Parts: sequence; structure tokens; C-alpha cells
Amino acid sequence: MGLDKKISMAVIKRLPRYYRYLSDLLKLNMDRVSSKELSLRMGITASQIRQDLNCFGGFGQQGYGYNVEYLYKEIGNILGVNEKFNVIIIGAGNMGQALANYSNFEKRGFNIIGIFDTNPDLVGRKIRGIEIMHLDSAEKFVKDFEIDIAMLCVPYDQTPDVADKLARMGVKGLWNFSPMDLKLSYDVIIENVHLSDSLMVLGYRMTEKFRGKEY
Amino acid sequence: MGLDKKISMAVIKRLPRYYRYLSDLLKLNMDRVSSKELSLRMGITASQIRQDLNCFGGFGQQGYGYNVEYLYKEIGNILGVNEKFNVIIIGAGNMGQALANYSNFEKRGFNIIGIFDTNPDLVGRKIRGIEIMHLDSAEKFVKDFEIDIAMLCVPYDQTPDVADKLARMGVKGLWNFSPMDLKLSYDVIIENVHLSDSLMVLGYRMTEKFRGKEY
Repeated sequence: MGLDKKISMAVIKRLPRYYRYLSDLLKLNMDRVSSKELSLRMGITASQIRQDLNCFGGFGQQGYGYNVEYLYKEIGNILGVNEKFNVIIIGAGNMGQALANYSNFEKRGFNIIGIFDTNPDLVGRKIRGIEIMHLDSAEKFVKDFEIDIAMLCVPYDQTPDVADKLARMGVKGLWNFSPMDLKLSYDVIIENVHLSDSLMVLGYRMTEKFRGKEY
Repeated sequence: MGLDKKISMAVIKRLPRYYRYLSDLLKLNMDRVSSKELSLRMGITASQIRQDLNCFGGFGQQGYGYNVEYLYKEIGNILGVNEKFNVIIIGAGNMGQALANYSNFEKRGFNIIGIFDTNPDLVGRKIRGIEIMHLDSAEKFVKDFEIDIAMLCVPYDQTPDVADKLARMGVKGLWNFSPMDLKLSYDVIIENVHLSDSLMVLGYRMTEKFRGKEY
């Protein structure tokens, strides 16, 4: 693709959405889609869509639209959906178990192969065939199975300490579900999930819509 | 504030982050913060920060920075953090139970007062004092307790049907955890949570960083 320039994180964050919508269009056997049609489906302006997709050299032809399959594959390549990641979950509470039950992640190349907790009542149990092991055995496991990513589902106050240990073990990416913007001095990539941010946006949209009504 | 113009959803989606960071600064007893300092902390350009905050009439003074407490309160007002929402969770599986255990939502005005499921093994149990009831009793509950929001944690294939029923019952907002962009013809506000989008962004960032390395 000859892609040299740096793409902004705002665009990157929209790519998974494009990827999902294009996957839907493929299922509908649509060959081509215009930025206008995509705009109507996705609730993003057509101009924004053209601008976003131009970042990658522009896959569309004017008056002809985008080739759905091609665009889907290219965005997939950019996102690295063909990459495979070995993943562990730290914390086998409800959130950890919920994540272990998402079979969708595997389709995207994120293979969850171990779950760790310190609770003796949980250790030894299996979730969707994935064993819950004691946290003490995580270091050996990370090395033996070349773990790339840890999904962090531990209580708030334990998160920085556990994250620090995982980084020392050689985990390269952390997906953090604790409500904090985790930062580490190590060379680790962290993606923080702030569930309440999304809930606050819902609250804002409701307040905006129903403002003035009895509420 | 005399705020008449429509604020873009991109800006709105960043506000909860500003709100979190300002909350941290308040805890550190910081009175003032410059867009540059905020930029360093948040990883957003100072220019983007000034542009975002200008949407609301600009709370800063040049060369003097922003008053942290004032900005925190104003953003809170815009987000409607002083609004109160009555919330139910639909689906008491791992994700539903994980959400019920997040005490953070209450601090933001989202009071979870009921959980519903169809599984007889779960009905009657309590999570953090919140009772799990049978889904059949949801309609009466929604009316009696004037439920604003339902958090949807039901399996993928059941989501559209359950969402439709909730909308008919009068629920005004849906927070959807099923991996689909739920849309309804009803006058309901839907915020879709796509967990795997965030994971794909992590995957992208890792692939970018380690591209070329043996991986």
C-alpha cells in the first residue's frame, strides 16, 4: 500500500466500526457501497467517511462507490485482523468470566488460552474449556506460551501492581477494565476500557433529548 | 451558559475523559491547569483541547489556564452528572453481574434497582443487594419504578427482541452489550458498547509497534 504517513488515533478508533459495517454488507451480498450509503448506515457524514478512507490511499472511485470486499479486506489488513495474539485473562470474577465467554474475540485473532486468579475456589475450574490457574503460575505460563496480551479484570486497587508484574513478565499489551487510565513506565501498550464513559454519553444524549420534559 | 449550538458527538464522547482527568486534578488539589498540561496528561493535543473546550464558551483565560474546579463542574453539568437515572439490567449472566457489581455507576447517577433474567436458578438471588427477578415481571417494574435505562446483557440472538419489548414498555435508553449495532424504530436512545472495537485498536497499536519484529 505504500503507506508511510502516520494515521491519527481518531481515525484508527473508527476503523473497527467500518470493518463491522462492511462485514454486514458482505453478508447482504452487496458488491459496492457509496460513501452516502455508508453514511446513512453508520451515522457518520459522507465527507468524514471519504476523508477517513482517503488516509489509506482512497479505495473508492468517484460516482462508482467502494468495492465492499476490497475495502473490508484492506481495513482488516490495516487493523491486523490476520495477526494472532496469545491472550490471558487476569481475574476470574464476573468480568473476567464474561470476557472468557466472548467467542467473538477468537474470530478477530485474540486467542484466550489461560485465566488467572488467586481465589482457591476458582482455581482449577474451566470456562469454555479454558482453565483457571493460580496467579503465581502466570510468569511461567507467559514465557512458555509467549503471551502477547493480558486482559486485566482485577479490583481497582490491585490493578497497577498486577499490571506492573505482567509488564516485567514480558506481556506486550494490556487491556484494562479497571476504571483508571493505567500508565506504566515499561514498553507496554495499554488500552483502557472506561465503561462508564459510554454510559455517561448515553446519559448526556437522554438528558439532551428529554430536557424540558418532566424527568 | 446560553449554549445553543449543537455540539458534535466526537466532542461529547471526549467529555467523560476530561471529566475523569479533572477529577484526578481536583484530588491533587490543583487549582489551575493549562491546556498544555492537560495535553501531556491526556495524550490529546493542546490545540484539540482548546478547540473542544471552546465549544462550551471557553472556560480558560489565556496565559492563566483553566480553573479546574469550575471546568470540572461545568463539564459535569453538560454531561448531566447531576441527573438521576433509574436503571435495570436485563440478563444476569457474567456481564450482567459484572455491571451490577460496578458501584461507580451510582456515583454518576445511574442507580441500578433491578436485574432480570429467565433462568430460574438465578431468579431470587441478589447481587450487591439488588434482586434478580423474572423477565416476565419487568413490564410492571418498569412502570412502577419509572425506569429510564436498561443495560442489555442478553445473548446476541435475543437482543433485538428484548430491546423491542423494553422500548414498548417505555424504557427511554438502552445500553447494549451485545456485539451488534442495535437500531429500533422506537423513540429510544441506544448506546452500543462494542468491546471488540477497543481490543482491535489494541491489536492495531501492537502490530504497528512490533511490525517488522518477529511476531
